[in-house]
Amino acid sequence: MTQTHFQTLIHARWLITIEQDGEILHHHTLAIENDSIAAIAPTADAAHWTADEVITLDEHALMPGFVNLHGHSAMTLLRGYADDLALMDWLQNHIWPAEGKHVSHDFVRDGSMIGMAEMIRSGTTTINDMYFYHSAVAEAGQKAAMRTFVGASILEFPTNYAQNSDEYIRRAMTEREAYLNDPLITFTLAPHAPYTVSDDTFRKVIATSEKHNMLVHCHIHETADEVNNSVKEHGKRPLARLNDLGVLNDKLIGAHMVHLNDEEIVLVARLNIAIAHNPSSNMKLASGIAPIQKLLDAGVTVGIGTDGAASNNKLDMFAETRSAALLAKVGTLNPTAVPAATALRMATLEGAKALHIADKVGSLKVGKRADLIAIDMGSLETAPAFDVISHIIYTAGREHVTHSWINGRCVMRARTLTTLDESALKITASEWRERIQK
Amino acid sequence: MTQTHFQTLIHARWLITIEQDGEILHHHTLAIENDSIAAIAPTADAAHWTADEVITLDEHALMPGFVNLHGHSAMTLLRGYADDLALMDWLQNHIWPAEGKHVSHDFVRDGSMIGMAEMIRSGTTTINDMYFYHSAVAEAGQKAAMRTFVGASILEFPTNYAQNSDEYIRRAMTEREAYLNDPLITFTLAPHAPYTVSDDTFRKVIATSEKHNMLVHCHIHETADEVNNSVKEHGKRPLARLNDLGVLNDKLIGAHMVHLNDEEIVLVARLNIAIAHNPSSNMKLASGIAPIQKLLDAGVTVGIGTDGAASNNKLDMFAETRSAALLAKVGTLNPTAVPAATALRMATLEGAKALHIADKVGSLKVGKRADLIAIDMGSLETAPAFDVISHIIYTAGREHVTHSWINGRCVMRARTLTTLDESALKITASEWRERIQK
Repeated sequence: MTQTHFQTLIHARWLITIEQDGEILHHHTLAIENDSIAAIAPTADAAHWTADEVITLDEHALMPGFVNLHGHSAMTLLRGYADDLALMDWLQNHIWPAEGKHVSHDFVRDGSMIGMAEMIRSGTTTINDMYFYHSAVAEAGQKAAMRTFVGASILEFPTNYAQNSDEYIRRAMTEREAYLNDPLITFTLAPHAPYTVSDDTFRKVIATSEKHNMLVHCHIHETADEVNNSVKEHGKRPLARLNDLGVLNDKLIGAHMVHLNDEEIVLVARLNIAIAHNPSSNMKLASGIAPIQKLLDAGVTVGIGTDGAASNNKLDMFAETRSAALLAKVGTLNPTAVPAATALRMATLEGAKALHIADKVGSLKVGKRADLIAIDMGSLETAPAFDVISHIIYTAGREHVTHSWINGRCVMRARTLTTLDESALKITASEWRERIQK
Repeated sequence: MTQTHFQTLIHARWLITIEQDGEILHHHTLAIENDSIAAIAPTADAAHWTADEVITLDEHALMPGFVNLHGHSAMTLLRGYADDLALMDWLQNHIWPAEGKHVSHDFVRDGSMIGMAEMIRSGTTTINDMYFYHSAVAEAGQKAAMRTFVGASILEFPTNYAQNSDEYIRRAMTEREAYLNDPLITFTLAPHAPYTVSDDTFRKVIATSEKHNMLVHCHIHETADEVNNSVKEHGKRPLARLNDLGVLNDKLIGAHMVHLNDEEIVLVARLNIAIAHNPSSNMKLASGIAPIQKLLDAGVTVGIGTDGAASNNKLDMFAETRSAALLAKVGTLNPTAVPAATALRMATLEGAKALHIADKVGSLKVGKRADLIAIDMGSLETAPAFDVISHIIYTAGREHVTHSWINGRCVMRARTLTTLDESALKITASEWRERIQK
């Protein structure tokens, strides 16, 4: 390597690559040039490197940003609006009426920006979103400069956004056009769930996915009721139905996948379906405990997602990854299930694999995009620091994230957002609360 | 009321009394005089009140401080030292050897102060501790000015602290003498667990408890193995054995109590045994899911504890109470189990009841001690704020606690500790890490 001057140099006490489970480099320097990681070396060997900006993080761990593999960013505006209710009561009597009354382009843009600000502040650099008003989500992603997968929801019943499945698909494909060359914005097709999408629509989704090489993002096997109702209505479990329809392939990200029998785990592994595990949401809505360790043992790609703020209620990958590690243990009565390094890989590289961007993000490697975060390990809450990977999963919190870079750009510096206006967003949230509470 | 000048006045946007589930007073002022809450009134009616210190918290919720009903504060020094291991491997090959090598008066004093600093920063005002070197714990509690229950561990096998159960009891009772008149320090008898304490020792503990009116704090029914081994060894489950020994009464706080059958739940309710529920520890060590909703339905007093930092790994009652609410739901497949207001009462007033201090702390009421905290609801993470009780349980984090008062004294002001030296404690933790890692 001949280059010695860079855009940004970060001297870090610990560098967690995620290239190998548990790999920790001590006192290393990472160089950013344009959108990418240009170099990584021991700080002692990088003494002659220079940069436009040099950041010294003596007590920090530098690691890839979290990949939030399942969320509905705009639902931050309904955070805490209704809790502790049975799923259908919650949806039918609270969330859907509120959405019907308020969801609009502006709601989605504002809510998504608030969600993205919260996510950046808690270390997420990629969000795999699913909602309505896709241009509004994309606009928020551009404003935040966040790596954003815009999941275009598709269902049969009408919402403010579209009247039927054809219109959902048409609007998705039309709105997608404007972002085809944006390095941070990628549209996915998001048929909502087996119980809200017809066979015919699933076939159209798959045809569109194949034609345009688009990922498919779908809630699957979230609750026991969903599975049982499918057996009643279709004579088969949702996964079997989706398999018959040709939906199951390596472009599919199944959100939740809580209720899986052993045959289904084998099927999921064989067909390379990726899973977005949302432990807080599954716990809060009492959906059940997903068989994560079994899925990992079978070789399935399992990432972690926060779900939306209405059912979590925080878009915090620290809380979520910790919950994933803890829930897997108590769910299997095995304290060695999903150890810290595995949980950390799930929350980063596995999520990137699910999104087919593991060549670009999810680990710290020269040539990959610079999507990375710094975590302060010098706080009282993280003292003493025996093991920084254990600390990231079990001990540290979102408040310890100090810096974030996405695609080479610093989006948070010493806890100050650089792309979004935190104060303005708080006022915006407050205004929406007043409107919604009326 | 004639008094209009007070030591401290706090004008709060929301005041959560915990006197009734869900009670929220808007724009209220709380007055502190000496160690107690002297007055509570709508801020508009308190315009003529004056004070030595007036604190205006426009965007904050004021509530009773958390009661951490089960912890081992000093084990902060072993935070992250060993994780993701089976319980006996973890204890026998990692924790006990490290304790054997390092635990001393200084270790316990330093570790307890670090733990108390962490707890104050995360909103805890009362800790029900259990460890060794009781004078060291009490010394830390005095230094922190924290309401501290010093659980004097009693077991059969020797540690650095004592050689046998008689010596454990003797040292406990001797060290207790110096603190009999301290309003913040209370000694309890803490027979470690049924599997480490003999029948004879339990009898001595009960005799001592009766003679000196002392609470008893004991790990009970934490794991299935504990229950099964007791059946093999004693021909009965631990609770049955403790019942035969006369240990079960309203002075007993049973930590964990994960494995309870329906008859045992009835017994626990009938005998007024209090329970310290530690969801993170139970999940991380894969101990199981305690039947909390059933216990609440039976009328049992259930508080919440963090357990020690070696098995959690944070002494954070926000994370713990959220986990209690979430785990109860997924554990019963009922999303209405342990709703937010119930979880909040468990983490405050129920803990106080368990410690027989509900007449003094656990709710905001004139005449009670001023043990209270302020939580900032104006952050981006808590926007929008529809429901502050939901937010405290599901959304807010320890980082949102701004102020804390214990027994009328401000121990944290705008996130700065007033009784403990945060910077010095971080250095202390680092020094211990170097010693322990050698």
